[in-house]
Amino acid sequence: MATHEEGHTGSPGGNGCHTSVDLKSHHSAEFKNGLSKRLNRIEGQIRGIKGMIERDTYCDDVLNQLAAVQSALNGVGRLLLEGHMKSCIIERIEAGEHEVIDELLVTVNKLMK
Amino acid sequence: MATHEEGHTGSPGGNGCHTSVDLKSHHSAEFKNGLSKRLNRIEGQIRGIKGMIERDTYCDDVLNQLAAVQSALNGVGRLLLEGHMKSCIIERIEAGEHEVIDELLVTVNKLMK
Amino acid sequence: MATHEEGHTGSPGGNGCHTSVDLKSHHSAEFKNGLSKRLNRIEGQIRGIKGMIERDTYCDDVLNQLAAVQSALNGVGRLLLEGHMKSCIIERIEAGEHEVIDELLVTVNKLMK
Amino acid sequence: MATHEEGHTGSPGGNGCHTSVDLKSHHSAEFKNGLSKRLNRIEGQIRGIKGMIERDTYCDDVLNQLAAVQSALNGVGRLLLEGHMKSCIIERIEAGEHEVIDELLVTVNKLMK
Repeated sequence: MATHEEGHTGSPGGNGCHTSVDLKSHHSAEFKNGLSKRLNRIEGQIRGIKGMIERDTYCDDVLNQLAAVQSALNGVGRLLLEGHMKSCIIERIEAGEHEVIDELLVTVNKLMK
Repeated sequence: MATHEEGHTGSPGGNGCHTSVDLKSHHSAEFKNGLSKRLNRIEGQIRGIKGMIERDTYCDDVLNQLAAVQSALNGVGRLLLEGHMKSCIIERIEAGEHEVIDELLVTVNKLMK
Repeated sequence: MATHEEGHTGSPGGNGCHTSVDLKSHHSAEFKNGLSKRLNRIEGQIRGIKGMIERDTYCDDVLNQLAAVQSALNGVGRLLLEGHMKSCIIERIEAGEHEVIDELLVTVNKLMK
Repeated sequence: MATHEEGHTGSPGGNGCHTSVDLKSHHSAEFKNGLSKRLNRIEGQIRGIKGMIERDTYCDDVLNQLAAVQSALNGVGRLLLEGHMKSCIIERIEAGEHEVIDELLVTVNKLMK
């Protein structure tokens, strides 16, 4: 997870792909709000599943609720991946930092599991 | 999600597969505590991801954290599925309610997506 | 993979869950034909992908074809799992061989990856 | 699936991302041989599964073999995705064709299913 930190030391400020004191965020407030809302909903769903387990809800219903959360999380993953590719990946490739592709492949493989 | 409710009306009390006023839960307190702890941790991870997005953390790190949550949720799913199969599925098959297999197949297919 | 062989020695002929000289198959010819046709089609798709790679087809098209094969294979998996649950799993649970659930969980977890 | 064809008409020969009479392939013979060998092995595995079904092999064994094929196919997908990203994606982004990211996202989402 630290690879990109080092990869970036050669080009401070070269892109907005991560934030530090002097780097602006690369995602719009709208995009971030959308993700926050989705994550709030997912948090609520997780709490709901805890309650279902406490109340001994029929397991099949709990499993269906769990599948719904997985699907919602995948939605967040797709949005984040899109945002990432359309900003950092493009910027870093254009900056000649082709090693960003290796980082991306590792991450995509984790998400595909 | 209501199928099993109806499917069960013919055999009230015949198994502990779902809870009503006069049915005991089929999972031990230990099993439920274990699930609750895992879900609390996952809730914390979701909150962590929200914070990462607010602080404009590098997307690849957020995506890795998201993959970790997916993996943790899959773990909860595997435990729930195991508990479900080892109690309700066995009990209902032994009670002659073979239609529980159709319900299980639908759920497993959702979890496999 | 040999667990069930041993698990079965105590009840030879007790169910039709696997074949030996004196056991009939538990799947109908129709079911088996349907699976064979699907697998033939998948084999053709794999050969098609090999041809695409040899002819240097644009990778994105090859990847889309690969996703189609994965989807077709998942379809075969769902059918096999259904057939398995509706015959062997039910029969062995009814025969008191509850350990079949552990075997099933291991397999479902592999298919979910 | 035709998007990239159109996207490319403006820059014939600009990259090696797909093959036509006057475009060289972008994958080495070694890379293509490696993929072909893997696909041959997968074809053999598919044939093996057909034989298992014909011989009424115990379903759980067939399902395990199927999971092995899925895993082998995922391996081919990862290699193809890597090759694709390290050639076409980089080349087209450098050529200013950012829309390749949309195409990539659609494909990755299909592979993640």
